[in-house]
Order: sequence, then structure tokens, then C-alpha cells
Amino acid sequence: MKVIVDLCLVPMGVGVSVSKYVAACHEVLQTEGLEITLHAYGTNIEGEWEQVMGAVKKCHERVHDMGAPRITTTIKMGTRIDRNQSMADKVESVQARLDGEA
Amino acid sequence: MKVIVDLCLVPMGVGVSVSKYVAACHEVLQTEGLEITLHAYGTNIEGEWEQVMGAVKKCHERVHDMGAPRITTTIKMGTRIDRNQSMADKVESVQARLDGEA
Amino acid sequence: MKVIVDLCLVPMGVGVSVSKYVAACHEVLQTEGLEITLHAYGTNIEGEWEQVMGAVKKCHERVHDMGAPRITTTIKMGTRIDRNQSMADKVESVQARLDGEA
Amino acid sequence: MKVIVDLCLVPMGVGVSVSKYVAACHEVLQTEGLEITLHAYGTNIEGEWEQVMGAVKKCHERVHDMGAPRITTTIKMGTRIDRNQSMADKVESVQARLDGEA
Repeated sequence: MKVIVDLCLVPMGVGVSVSKYVAACHEVLQTEGLEITLHAYGTNIEGEWEQVMGAVKKCHERVHDMGAPRITTTIKMGTRIDRNQSMADKVESVQARLDGEA
Repeated sequence: MKVIVDLCLVPMGVGVSVSKYVAACHEVLQTEGLEITLHAYGTNIEGEWEQVMGAVKKCHERVHDMGAPRITTTIKMGTRIDRNQSMADKVESVQARLDGEA
Repeated sequence: MKVIVDLCLVPMGVGVSVSKYVAACHEVLQTEGLEITLHAYGTNIEGEWEQVMGAVKKCHERVHDMGAPRITTTIKMGTRIDRNQSMADKVESVQARLDGEA
Repeated sequence: MKVIVDLCLVPMGVGVSVSKYVAACHEVLQTEGLEITLHAYGTNIEGEWEQVMGAVKKCHERVHDMGAPRITTTIKMGTRIDRNQSMADKVESVQARLDGEA
């Protein structure tokens, strides 16, 4: 089952600056061979369920290894069985509406 | 790695009433032997990472099997390595603050 | 417009224990006269949109005043125009399904 | 108080395709003069709290007006009082880490 995920991992107990933890997760996700897109409040990920969720677990493990005692993560995850849809498709379908209405 | 999760699964393309899908997920989670608590905007789940996330995948599969062509799920997931903390502990620690300040 | 909200406010840069901040938000929400229910990964709130969202802003202000330099909050918010539905209704409609299937 | 928001609005009871509702929200947010960035699982928004949250309410009103009987929205919202930080700053601080480690 394919899944599109929006991942926002927040390390707690490590101060206000969390960019190094987010960058570490970025590397974990890339090492796992996943298609990812960073945005201002998370990272979009596309792939097979087990691969994506396995990578999210590795992100938690990596961030704990880096010294974060606690992590709270917010994930949105979408699956559909009516048709294939990529992350790019989702953005394009909205953009087509916007262009069509212009 | 133990995880506390807040799961909110939303079937799309099946009308406005989604209680039967939420109830089906409740049964899936219970069949998996997970500790769960239903609230007005989701379900709290406590357990080992693989078990919990495997159960979440089974929820998606069940809801698709019931006819929902598309699902969007929001999950919050917390892990910590400094100490053990159950769902009940989390509520109690806040309640103790509230009682202490009363 | 009535809204049902699930609020999860996470102060950053204040260490791993956040129960005193959650308790402070609980008090803010109660002072605002809102119907609330605490659970293990957030707080359910029911009320008019402006009142609820105004109270959420007051929670951010209070937690910053308590010393948190940064806050990240996850909110789920539901509105419907087909019928009235309370937080209790939502739980009961799922519970009725579970009982009916038992 | 400035806020950075990630908005993901999901109309329920209108079928599986929701791009026209997302496009309508995009227009509402632009009409409100907000800085926004669309991604594959939501829209990042930057602005003053009242302006942003007022615009989110207008999105709900617009989508209900378009015929959606029910809406569930997931929002992440970040505030900080230690320094100013834009959406672009957030992405750049992670990117700088990634480049530095390359």
C-alpha cells in the first residue's frame, strides 16, 4: 500500500533550535531511498507504507541518539485505492484549478 | 521502543457519517491487543512501535475493505527515553498540577 | 459557527516536562467558559469558533508568559452545517456502533 | 503575535476529489493578503495571528458555502518570542545544516 505522508518531528528537552535534528531526519529519509520534499512546517514523503513508517521510526531513533530525551511527532498520512496519486499530482491538481479559474 | 499515539482516521468519499469506520478501527486495535482510549476527536493508543503502527496499517486496510476509496489520517506520536510514561501518567501529571493549584 | 477542537500545545526550550504548561492552558480554557475534556495527547474543546480560537491564542500568550520561548501546537478542528453534534455525541455514536456489533 | 501555520482542510461528504475546495481556500488566503506556500499535504501560511486564523475561518465558511456539509481540518501553528523567523528562514536553517554536512 502506497502512502503520502507529512512528517513533523519535534524533539523536546533540547532547546529552541531544532534544525540539526530536522536535517538528520532528512538524511535518514534520503538514505532510505524515499522521495521527500521539505517545507516550512514538515517534510512530505512518498513511498510504500512499511518503508515510509520504518524510516519514521529510524528518525525517532536517530534523534534520540543525538540526545533528545523526548520526541513528539505529528504525521498526516493519506492512502487511496481508487487510483495512483503522487505528491506532485496533488499539487498539480490544485494548481490546475487555480490556473483554470484565473 | 514504546510509543503513545493519538490516531484520527478520516475516510473520504463515503459521506458525512464516519462512526462505523471509527468503530471498525476500534475493533482492529482491540484485536491487536492494544490499550486504547476513545475520545471526541481520535483514539489514544499505547504500545510497542511496531505493534501500534502495524495496527494503524490494518485500520487503513479495514476501512478501504469497507469501501472507502481514500483515507486521510492524522497521528500524533510520542516517544521518550528518559523514563517510562503511560497514557494514564500523562493525564495524571496534568491533573496533579490542577489539583495542586486549586 | 460551532467548532469541536482537539488542542495539543507543545512548549519548546523548557525541558521535557510540560505538564505545568498544559495545566495552565486548562485553566485558561476553563476561565473562558469552554467545555473541555483532557486526554492523554491533548484537550478536546467545544464552543463557538471565535471563543475557542481566542482561547487558544490566550493559551499561547500564557505559555510564552511562563517562559517558553517557542511553541508548536497541533489542532484538529471540525465544523458541520448538516446538524448539531457535541463532543459527547461523537463518542456516543461510535460507542453505539460498538455495542450494536457486540 | 506572528504565527506560522500549516493548514490541511478536508471537506467530508463531497466525494474523493477535493482539489477544487483546496483551490478555493488558496484564493481566500490570497485575498486576505497572506503569504502562502502550497505543498503536497497542506498550505503553509505566515502572518499575524488574528489575520491568519480569521482567514482559516473564512476557508471553512467558503467550503461549507460550496456544499461541503462537514469539514475536518488539521493545523500546526508555531509562535516564538525569542526572535523573528519566517517560513523561508525555517527551510533555510535546515538546508544550511544539510549543505554544511555535505
